[in-house]
Parts: sequence; structure tokens; C-alpha cells
Amino acid sequence: RLSTVDLEEDIDPVRSRPKEIPHNEKLLSLKYESLDYDNSENQLFLEEERRMSHMGFRCLEISRWVICGLIGVFTGLIACFIDIVVEKLAGVKYSVVKKNIEMFTEVGGLSISLLLWVVLNSAFVMVGAIIVTCFEPIAAGSGIPQIKCYLNGVKVPRVVRLKTLVVKVCGVICSVAGGLAVGKEGPMIHSGAVVAAGVSQGRSTSLKKDFKIFEYFRRDTEKRDFVSAGAAAGVSAAFGAPVGGVLFSLEEGASFWNQMLTWRIFFASMISTFTLNLVLSVYHNKTTELSSPGLINFGTFDLECVQYSLYEIPLFICMGAIGGLLGALFNLLNYWLTIFRIRYVHRPCLQVMEAMMVAAVTASVSFAMIYLSNDCKPLKMDNSEEYPLQVAQWLSERWSGNSAARQFVYSWVRVGQGGASPSLVFGVVSAFQLFCADGEYNAMATTFFNTPERSVRSLFHNPRGTYNLLTLGFFTLTYFFLACWTYGLMVSAGVFIPSLLIGAAWGRLFGVLLPNKTFIKPIWADPGKYALMGAAAQLGGIVRMTLSLTVILVEATGNVTYGFPIMLVLMTAKIVGDYFIEGLYDIHIKLQSVPFLHWEAPATSHWLTAREVMSSPVTCFNQLEKVGTIMDFLSNTATNHNGFPVIVQATFGMTCLFLLCGLILRSQLIVLLKHKVFVERAHSRLHQRKLQLKDFRDAYPRFPPIQSIHVSQDERECMMDLSEFMNPTPYTVPQETSLPRVFKLFRALGLRHLVVVDDVNKVVGLVTRKDLARYHMGKHGLEELHLAQM
Amino acid sequence: RLSTVDLEEDIDPVRSRPKEIPHNEKLLSLKYESLDYDNSENQLFLEEERRMSHMGFRCLEISRWVICGLIGVFTGLIACFIDIVVEKLAGVKYSVVKKNIEMFTEVGGLSISLLLWVVLNSAFVMVGAIIVTCFEPIAAGSGIPQIKCYLNGVKVPRVVRLKTLVVKVCGVICSVAGGLAVGKEGPMIHSGAVVAAGVSQGRSTSLKKDFKIFEYFRRDTEKRDFVSAGAAAGVSAAFGAPVGGVLFSLEEGASFWNQMLTWRIFFASMISTFTLNLVLSVYHNKTTELSSPGLINFGTFDLECVQYSLYEIPLFICMGAIGGLLGALFNLLNYWLTIFRIRYVHRPCLQVMEAMMVAAVTASVSFAMIYLSNDCKPLKMDNSEEYPLQVAQWLSERWSGNSAARQFVYSWVRVGQGGASPSLVFGVVSAFQLFCADGEYNAMATTFFNTPERSVRSLFHNPRGTYNLLTLGFFTLTYFFLACWTYGLMVSAGVFIPSLLIGAAWGRLFGVLLPNKTFIKPIWADPGKYALMGAAAQLGGIVRMTLSLTVILVEATGNVTYGFPIMLVLMTAKIVGDYFIEGLYDIHIKLQSVPFLHWEAPATSHWLTAREVMSSPVTCFNQLEKVGTIMDFLSNTATNHNGFPVIVQATFGMTCLFLLCGLILRSQLIVLLKHKVFVERAHSRLHQRKLQLKDFRDAYPRFPPIQSIHVSQDERECMMDLSEFMNPTPYTVPQETSLPRVFKLFRALGLRHLVVVDDVNKVVGLVTRKDLARYHMGKHGLEELHLAQM
Repeated sequence: RLSTVDLEEDIDPVRSRPKEIPHNEKLLSLKYESLDYDNSENQLFLEEERRMSHMGFRCLEISRWVICGLIGVFTGLIACFIDIVVEKLAGVKYSVVKKNIEMFTEVGGLSISLLLWVVLNSAFVMVGAIIVTCFEPIAAGSGIPQIKCYLNGVKVPRVVRLKTLVVKVCGVICSVAGGLAVGKEGPMIHSGAVVAAGVSQGRSTSLKKDFKIFEYFRRDTEKRDFVSAGAAAGVSAAFGAPVGGVLFSLEEGASFWNQMLTWRIFFASMISTFTLNLVLSVYHNKTTELSSPGLINFGTFDLECVQYSLYEIPLFICMGAIGGLLGALFNLLNYWLTIFRIRYVHRPCLQVMEAMMVAAVTASVSFAMIYLSNDCKPLKMDNSEEYPLQVAQWLSERWSGNSAARQFVYSWVRVGQGGASPSLVFGVVSAFQLFCADGEYNAMATTFFNTPERSVRSLFHNPRGTYNLLTLGFFTLTYFFLACWTYGLMVSAGVFIPSLLIGAAWGRLFGVLLPNKTFIKPIWADPGKYALMGAAAQLGGIVRMTLSLTVILVEATGNVTYGFPIMLVLMTAKIVGDYFIEGLYDIHIKLQSVPFLHWEAPATSHWLTAREVMSSPVTCFNQLEKVGTIMDFLSNTATNHNGFPVIVQATFGMTCLFLLCGLILRSQLIVLLKHKVFVERAHSRLHQRKLQLKDFRDAYPRFPPIQSIHVSQDERECMMDLSEFMNPTPYTVPQETSLPRVFKLFRALGLRHLVVVDDVNKVVGLVTRKDLARYHMGKHGLEELHLAQM
Repeated sequence: RLSTVDLEEDIDPVRSRPKEIPHNEKLLSLKYESLDYDNSENQLFLEEERRMSHMGFRCLEISRWVICGLIGVFTGLIACFIDIVVEKLAGVKYSVVKKNIEMFTEVGGLSISLLLWVVLNSAFVMVGAIIVTCFEPIAAGSGIPQIKCYLNGVKVPRVVRLKTLVVKVCGVICSVAGGLAVGKEGPMIHSGAVVAAGVSQGRSTSLKKDFKIFEYFRRDTEKRDFVSAGAAAGVSAAFGAPVGGVLFSLEEGASFWNQMLTWRIFFASMISTFTLNLVLSVYHNKTTELSSPGLINFGTFDLECVQYSLYEIPLFICMGAIGGLLGALFNLLNYWLTIFRIRYVHRPCLQVMEAMMVAAVTASVSFAMIYLSNDCKPLKMDNSEEYPLQVAQWLSERWSGNSAARQFVYSWVRVGQGGASPSLVFGVVSAFQLFCADGEYNAMATTFFNTPERSVRSLFHNPRGTYNLLTLGFFTLTYFFLACWTYGLMVSAGVFIPSLLIGAAWGRLFGVLLPNKTFIKPIWADPGKYALMGAAAQLGGIVRMTLSLTVILVEATGNVTYGFPIMLVLMTAKIVGDYFIEGLYDIHIKLQSVPFLHWEAPATSHWLTAREVMSSPVTCFNQLEKVGTIMDFLSNTATNHNGFPVIVQATFGMTCLFLLCGLILRSQLIVLLKHKVFVERAHSRLHQRKLQLKDFRDAYPRFPPIQSIHVSQDERECMMDLSEFMNPTPYTVPQETSLPRVFKLFRALGLRHLVVVDDVNKVVGLVTRKDLARYHMGKHGLEELHLAQM
């Protein structure tokens, strides 16, 4: 078995459409390579490092901080951009529909206006789906699985490109404006990661623009560190949770904890949430307040209510179990749906049509729900305090006549699309008259047609009795299936907010159902607390994140008191959920057959040794190798190796041994061939400049394919001296090393190739990521995945 | 140069008094060994692992969780114990003094009562100092430097013993009850670590009690993981900051981030703060509230005040710089003081006397300060609302007559000692009449004679105008020097709370000094915010912790809004402080000459290779080695090696090579010798049972010294077969490996020995912790530390 890896990073996006990836969780794709997290310490590198003064290193360190600051600023700005554009777009949509209503009310226009509404929503979603499917399919979904893979050390093609960022941002705007059951928080993490990858390189390969700065950071080691900062900044901007962001990055990515790196990540997160806060505050003319730390915040819990008693802890655990069960159900349904999609919905036009259909159904189902339920509550006058002047005026005009239908469409349009300015919407939302009598409002509509973020907040904070049981129950049910159907569509969209919303709804239901008149009544009188726990349980049951999710939720709540119950709930949800099926992101990673390395080797894998795990035989090069041989090996598409041990001949008496003396990468060889660094040209190269590390950096990360390099027949006979360019000290292990030990070394150091040697340092095999990722813990002990044909 | 390491862990505590350690920051002590964080995967271990079923691993995992839960519970209980006993002791002290006052008031007793007070304080401190100096000197101080070293991988003798815990707990109670300028928070971290080390082993070597549980965890790898959980639980109990605790453990210790481990650490932290909360709530009869998450909490900031404007950010940065400067000054003074102490105050009786003197001076200086200042404020009636009934009654009785002197002593005694029940003390504190007229109270006394924890809270929350400028200034000055003098005494005591208090005092001063009537007045009207930032700056300037400290402070504040400014302040303080001198803990670690490994190799160390760094020649054993040879090597006190490469002979034609085939530890050899596992006895051992991993675990961690093993002259001629017990796959590097690469491998995997081999796998050297710790970044580039003579 050979370790064949597809190097080609620059494939045509249309050809590499997901349909070509073997979507099967029992396979490992060979499409994905590893990142080179381990520095190749060749002579060029060491010379450069040795030339650099103490001051030089200090400057580098300062640049790193500057980059992290920039990452924070840009990520924050992108979050603002998304927030503001969604609001503006929704405003435009609203004005169009409003005009329509005013035109058609006379001719019995409710159905026409409804139709227009459905069409508009579908149109937004269509645009979002088209740009994703046509330009950058990798921008679909929340992007969290892809970033998880990247931070794990897998080079996911095109995931951190500028084009991906543009498509992602536009896509998420469209899908949120299109009224889908999605959040804009997940995609922020991906956006932050792309920003980081871009800023840290000081150039854009897509735009062919090189700023000639930060050249030192043009390698996988540094880039991956910055990308983890970017992901953290994204979380931080989305939830106003800088510490949660750092923990997210660490939990998902960093195997090696470095204090300075962590501190920089934290800095990026803080800057990101601060930028968002500042810009949105300025935008809303509240410069002195700085009160919007994230795209979502859970509002302030009343200080008197922020406490819990010992008796509630079993209840919380119980909620965690429910969340775990519901989460597992969600994941299972989505798993089947994804398999269905992979089989039958893989053509772009079908994907766009499905997305449009979901948008239309979402709108229609919501309408039906509101129509069928009649959860009318008396409109209290204290709500009107929240109205801004013009809305109050407008409402009072309309309210006098029994124009329920117009009211309905108006309010619906105004708030359903998720964006308008808070106070304005709050006023209208509070007054969903809909199919209710005058002076009443429709509670179902209030839950359904608010922006998801705001609905979550209402469920957390509204006083007891705001919603009736049936409303909450029906809402949970419908939104559960809608959200499940939506995740996995070819649109940019996150699953965090829908999960929170589902959980908050059933959590509140749970809280309301509790016996109200007990000896501990004053404590659990507040169903908002249970809504929060339900939200945590549902989200935990779906994504199965642990520490970072606890901290994100605590930070979004703005209060540390609920830390312990949230942790309990998340832990129970994870344990219960894991019993049935994996987390949503892991399911999608598996379905993409990504060679993902978990934290530890499977527990019962001690009986496996490097000898059984490694790929062999290995293609080795001599320290002084013929160009033709190298060309032939690199061009051989059957064995697409990426790393080649370099060997040297040593004679002991009569015995001649070939000993390992280094490791060279395909990308390095390609740069060498391109610059024709041949021994025979050495004397002519005296006039020419010497090959420098800069040449490798300039080619990074899109090294040209071997086919683009032309070597004449004469040149094929030349020799190449690899000693200067190879990594002279690759990590090695003996053949008897157990799998957990190999795994630990691989994971802790972020290796791409690990050379297996025998007693006398002769190369006998090579361990790569795929060799390790093949083993995993199944239901019946250790299982082995098969390698896909491509 | 040989890697000589002192193995002896069980030395007489009196003989190993600090005076014998070379206290010089230019030296590296050979006293400290490394922990074996890397598993020795020998045949016994692999057999055991391979025998274990999937279920077995699951049980182990569950045990780990149970242990973490127990660690949390016990750590929480210890925190409660300290809190409650301090309170009770203070009560006793108060009643004695009160009786005395009532007896002597007639005969002009103020001076006598004062004397009694000084004597009582000194007595408490004396008891604390005596138990520390006589029984367990390692229990002195906060214990954080020691725990940092342990988590870094250094085996600090006796640091995680039961005896140390007992002395620590009693010591901290005495020093807090003795009125020193210390906190009880730092020692909690050490206590948590000891609890973890004890619980996870399922036995106490000191008490000779073996519960026969958790035997699997009896090795350094597992123990260190649990100790990091214990340290986190300690932080969590001290500050009510579970996330901060996790980050503290990770920042200080874990080089390799493991998700499950982190989650367990978080669990322990949560349980710990929950236990503390629960027990204290029950103790104070408030079961339904659970409102004391930590030993200290910063109280609730008013929600309207919890905001800051953009214009304040430069102010915060400025405060950070001040904190950095003051912190550096503190550290520098303490550094000189520590050097002085090492030279002249190393005899136990001197140390006890110094501690008593500090206690007496602390009491007297405070008295003088109050006498000299006359910061009298009118006693407002709204204060009286806070009085509990009996105190109010008592006060009103006394207040009527002009019994200032009696008042003074009474109040002083009552509150100066740091413990009584909150509401009672608050009443009295608010009414420090002292040398003021009737109907007024003394603000200086209010700051000085409160418990430090409560003073911090008052400085954060009291309204503008509570303290005058002179009071704050004088208080800062006095407390600064007192705290500086106190840290490093031979008593158990932490520096967190004094630092916070100093910082809160000057921070509040800063806030009060700001021009009050500007266009942004409403925002910075509250000096409490500046007190918080000052506290952060001062603490950051002294200890130089970063991420974890931010989170601890945010959690203790209970509000995430101040996260960004706190981070800015801490970062500025660190940058400014680092310019002058290292952090306090690092200074003390350096003065102990501990071979501490930092996160990365010094930046300019790329020109060093393993060849230059390693120790050579290395003592190697043959796979089949004579017992006599082994005994001689182990007994040789000049070369106290701990790890021995095992070699095997291989013949290639005419050439004979000695190749590396494993690594064996001194501790393993000692167990083998003790059980007389000799080849010649193999056939008689058919009847005897085979040596198992259990035998190694039973001997852990106090392996007998080689002198205690007796081998007869006949047995010296026997052979030992090491192949079954050695680690057959030690990590190796070639000689040309650069220092940063060696360092990274060492740090990421927590190694103790790294074998350096040549091209054909022949052992040429051994790299140990000391070889790496020798290089550090000085003012003028790379510097090399010398190895001490012992």
C-alpha cells in the first residue's frame, strides 16, 4: 500500500465538485493532504535564522501581534458589514412589499402579497445558492467542519481563499435575508479564518497583489497559527465571547499549547469583539456605551433571578438528557438527508432549486402555523412604551380600523426577515395582531416571525405567561424540522442560532410545565432560566462541543453564575448524544472522508506497531540524484507522494548500508526543478544568484504542478544535490513503536511525514496522516477504514 | 559534562533546608529531576494494555472522572475549612481582647490592650512560622512557584505530600489570623494540587494506607494530569473562577493540549467552586441562594456603571503602565530581600523571629497611620441600615459616651483579624470612630483594618467621596512595603490579595484625581472602575500572568464587559514590567535554580545543535548486563544518572556496531534489583511469580535508594536481561538537530531523556532537562547558566 496523496491544490472548482469525493464514512479520501506544521529545518532556513539578530526576532514577534490586531479588526468589520447589510436589505424588501400591500389591498391582496413575500424570500435564497454552487461550493454551510479540519492539520482545498470569503459573506447575507432558519454566527468563524490566512501572508494570490510584507510567515506553520487566531476572532465577533473564541480554537485545533500564541489569539479575539462593538455603537449613535459585543447577545438576566438552588440540579441534568436525545435525532435526520443529497442532489441546478424550495416552505409553514394556532394574548399598554415615535403613530393609525390582514402582512414583512433596527422591530413584534381580535396579539407569530436572535432573547427574558404551551410545542416541532432540513443546503448558513432557538422553546416549555406552587417556588418561577438551559442542551446535543461552548454561552449571557448548570447540561447532552450518534460537524467531516486525527489514538490500539501502520515501500532519493529520476517519480500519477526520504550510502567493512539522512518535500523539489538548481550548472550559477528561502516562499502556497515544468533531455542527465534543501533531521521512530506512541508524536508535533527506520537507521516505511486516521473506534472495537480510489 | 541528577527524594527535611540549595539565578541546581511524562512502553506495559478490553478502558476513563470529581469536592472542602476556621479563630481572639479591654479600661488600658493585640497577632504568626520551618519548609509562601515547576515537569521534592498539605492549611490559617498583609487564595492552588496527587493515587504513603484503588494511575504521566486538575480546582475555589482555573493550569503546565483532559480539569474546577458555594451557603443558612462561589468575590458592579467609553482606553493603558512600574519595583525590592534572606536569615529561629517581627510591625504601623491621619467623615445614618441588631444596639450604647479609645480598640480587634461574619463586621467597619469626633468615622481605619478581601470590595464599590486622597495615598504606600516585606517569609501566604488591595487603592486614587467635570462625566464618575483596573494592573505587574489572570478577574467580577480593558491593562503591565525585571514567581523559581523549561527555545539559539547541547559520554548498559556493573553504576554518587540507554551489538561483515535498542530508568533498575530478577534465577522463578507492572507501581513514587539494596558477591556475577523492562522505542534525534527542534520535541512530549544518535543509530549523547534549561535569553543575547555543584 502506497501513501498516495493528491498534491494538486489548484484544480478547477467545477471538476472538484463534491460529487467526486467519495462520500462514505467507511472510506478515507486521498484528496486531502496534511499541512506542514513541522518546520523543514534545512540549511537555508538555519542560515537565515542564524543570520537574524535578537532584534530581528523581536520585530517578527511584533509583526505577529500587529497581524493578530489586523485580523481582529477585519473580522470585526466583516461582522459589522454582514449585520448592517442584512438590515439594509431587509429594509428594501420591506419597502417593496409595503408598496405592494398598499397597491393591492383593495383587490383582495393578502394572497398576492403573501406570494410576493414567498417569491422575494426565494429570490434571496436563490442568489445565495447560485453564488455558492457556481463560484465556491466550499463556502456552503457554516464552514465550521472545514475550519476544524484545517486546524486539525488537513489542507482543505480553497478553504482559506479570498474568493471563498467573498462568497461566504454574500451567501450568508442572502440566506439570512431570505428568511431561512439559519444564523449568521457560524459563517463568521470561517470568515475570520480566511481573513487571518489572507492578512498574515501580506498578499493575495487571487488578486495578484503582493505587499512584500510578512514574507517570513509564508509557510504552513505560521499560517495555521494565524488561522486559529482568525477562527477565535470569528467566534468572538459572533457571540461577543473572546475567551470562548480562544477555547474554541484550542479545542478544535492547537495540539501544542503555546503561551505566546494563546495570548495572541486572545488579543485578536478581544480586538475583534471590540471593533464590532465600536462600529455598531457608532452606527447606532451610541459611542459612549459600547453595548453590542457580539452579533448575538442573550440580554441581561435580572440579577435577582440569576441564581439556582440545589433542587434544580437534577432538573438541569434531565434537560441535558432531553437535549442529547433531540440533538441525536437532529443529527440522525440530517445524516440521512445528507446521504440523500449526496446521491441525488449533486447537480448545481438541483441544489439551487432545493434551497429555494426550503425558503418557500419555511415561509408557508410559518404562515400555516400562525393561521392554525390562535394563541391570542391581550395587548398590554406597557408594551407601547417600547415603540419609537413614528411606529407608534403608524400603529395607532392602523389599529383603529380592523385591518387585521394588512397588519399581519405588514408586521410579518417587517420583522420576518431578520434585521431592522431593534427598537423599531420590538414595537411591531409586540403587536402582532394577526388573526386575533383587536387589542390582542398573536404569540405564535411573535415567536415565529421575529429574527431568530431576538426570539431567543424573548424566550429567555419574557415574563411567565407570555407564550402558551401549545405555541411553544408547535414552534419547537416545526422549527426543529425546518432547521434540520436547512442545514446542509448549498447556502452559507450556521446552525448555532436555530439550535439555540429550538432549545430555548422547549426549555421554556419545560420551565412552564414545572409545578408552580411548591415550597421552592420563588426560585423556579422564572422560565427564562429553563429556556437558557434548554438552548444549551439542544446546542450541546447537536454540536457536542464542551468547554468552549460552556464559555461561549456564559460570555453571551454576560453572567458567570450559570456556569455550573450550563456545564452540567452540556456534559449530559454530550454523553447521551454520543451514545447514539456523533456530533453534527463530525458527521459531515466523516461524510467527506477527511483524514481527521482525533486527540488520542483509539484506546485498544496498543497491539498495532509502526510496522503494521506504515506505508511501504517508500520512494527514496539519493542525496545526489539524477534529474530524470526525480522528474519521473514526481510525474508518476499513480504514486502521488509528497515527502521523500533522502538516503546516503555508508560502507562498513564489506557491508554497504543506505542510511536516512534527510527528508525532502515535493513542493521543494518542484521549486528546485523550476529554478534548475543542478550540480552541472553550479559554476554558471556563480554569476547567477543563489536559491534562497524567498524563492520557496514566493511559490507558497500554490506550487506549480509538475506538468508545468519542462526539463530538456540534456537536463534530465544532470544531477541535483538535495543536501542543502532537505530537512536533515526528520523525526524517526523504530518499527516496534506502538500506534499510540506514533500517534502522540504525530499529533503533538503536527507532523506530515514520519519516517520509520530499522535498527541501523535504514528507511523501512513512512507514516502519514492517512495511515493513522484509518484506525478508529467503532461499536465493536477497533475498525479500519478503507482508502478511497481517489 | 555529565548529567548528574540527585535521585534521592526521601532526604531528611532538616538536611535539605533551602540554605543548601545554591540560591543564585546564574546557576542550575542538580537537585531537581524531571517527571517521566513520557510513558515507558515496555513489554509489561504493552502486555497489560493489550490484555485490557474496550470496557476496561472505559472504566479507566470513568475512574478519571470520579477522581476529578473527588479532587473538586476535597479542594472545595479545604477552602471552606480555611474560611470557617479563620473566622472562628478570629472570634476567639476577639473575645480575649474584649475581656481584656473591659478589665483594663479603668487603669488607662489602651496601651496594654494594644500590646495584647500585638502579642496575640505575633503569637499566631509564630505558630504558623514554626510549623512551616520545622515540619515542611516547602509549604512556605504561596506555593504557586512550586506548582508551576511541578506542572512544568520538575519533580520538586515533597511538594505534593500530605504533610505539606496539613502544614500549608494550618500555616495559612495562622498567618491570616495573625493579621499579616497576606491572602489565603494563593495557598489554595497548592492545596488543590496536593489533594489531586493524593486522591489520584488511592493511597497515602505517609499514613501507610493503601486503598487498592486507582492503581493504574500510579505513574508520573497520570499524576501530573491530575495535579493540573487540582491546581485548577484550587484557583476555582479561591476566586470562584472555574474557567480561569483551567486556563491557569494550561498556561502554567500543559504543553500538550488534550481535549478530554481539559474537560476533566474543567469538571474538577466546577465541582470545587460548587462545593465551596454549597457548604458556605449551608453554613450561613442560605441553601437556596448559592452565592459564595469563591473565597473572594469582587461584588456586583452596578449594571448602569458597567460600561466604558472609547476615551477611557488611553487612561486604562496608562494605568497598566503604572501597574507595570510598581510591580517591577515590588519585584525588585522582593528580589533584594530574598537574596538577603538567603544569605542571612536561613536559620529556623531567625525565620520565625522575622515573621513575628513583621506581624508586630504590621500592627504597629497600622496604628500609627490611623493615629497620624485624621480623615474623619460624618457618619451617615444610612450606614446603620447595614448593622445587624445586636451590633447596632451595642454601638448605640457606647456611642453616647465619648469613649473613643475603647471604641477604637474594640473595632480594631473586631475587624483587624480578618474573619468574622460579613454583616457584623460591615456594621462595625462603617463606624470606625477612632480618633474622630462623635458622629464621625475614620476612613483610614476603614481601609486598613478591614479584611483585605472586604477592603478590596469597598474600594471597588463605595461611592465617590468615601475616602480622601491622603488616606488612599498613604495606605497604598504603607501596604506596598508591608506586602513586599511579607512575601517570602517562612509562613504560608499568598500575594494575590495584597496586590489587588494595593492596586485598588491607587486605582481609586487615580479615578478620584481625574477631572470630574468634563463632557464625558457620567461615564467616569465612578472611581470603583478605576480601582478594579488598578487592582488588575498591580497584580499583573507583580505576577505577569496574562490570559488566565484576565479570565480570573473577569469571573471574580462576575461580568464580562470589563474583559477588554482588563486585558489591555494586564498586557501593558506585563510589557512595561518585563522591561525591568521578571515576574515574582519566576524570580523565586530562578533563585531556587530550578531547571525550568519555557515555552520555546530562546529565539537566537538556532546555531546550537544537539551535539553541543547533549551530555556525553553516556553510561550505556547492554541488553544482557552483569548485576555487578549495574550496581556499581547506580551506586556511583559522582554520576547520579537516572536514565540509561540500552545497547545491543550488531555485526556488519567485519564491523561491529553497538546500536541503541532501548532506554531504562534508574527506578526500574532498582525495582529489578530489589526483586532479584536475574537470568540465573529464571528457572527458579518458574515457581516464583513473574514481575509485574504492579511491582513498579507499588514502589512508585518513593523508590528505595540504591544503598538500601543488598546484593551478595555471588549475585553480582549474575546477569540481568533488560529487554523486557526497558522502553524499546525511546525518542531519538540526530546530532545535527537544532536546539529549537530538540526543545520542541522535549516540551511537546514532556520528555525526561532524549537520546542523541549518529547516522547508524549509535548512542552519542543524552539530552536532559538541565541541558536545555541552561540556555536562556539574557540582556545581551543568549546566555548559558552554570550547573551547581549540587
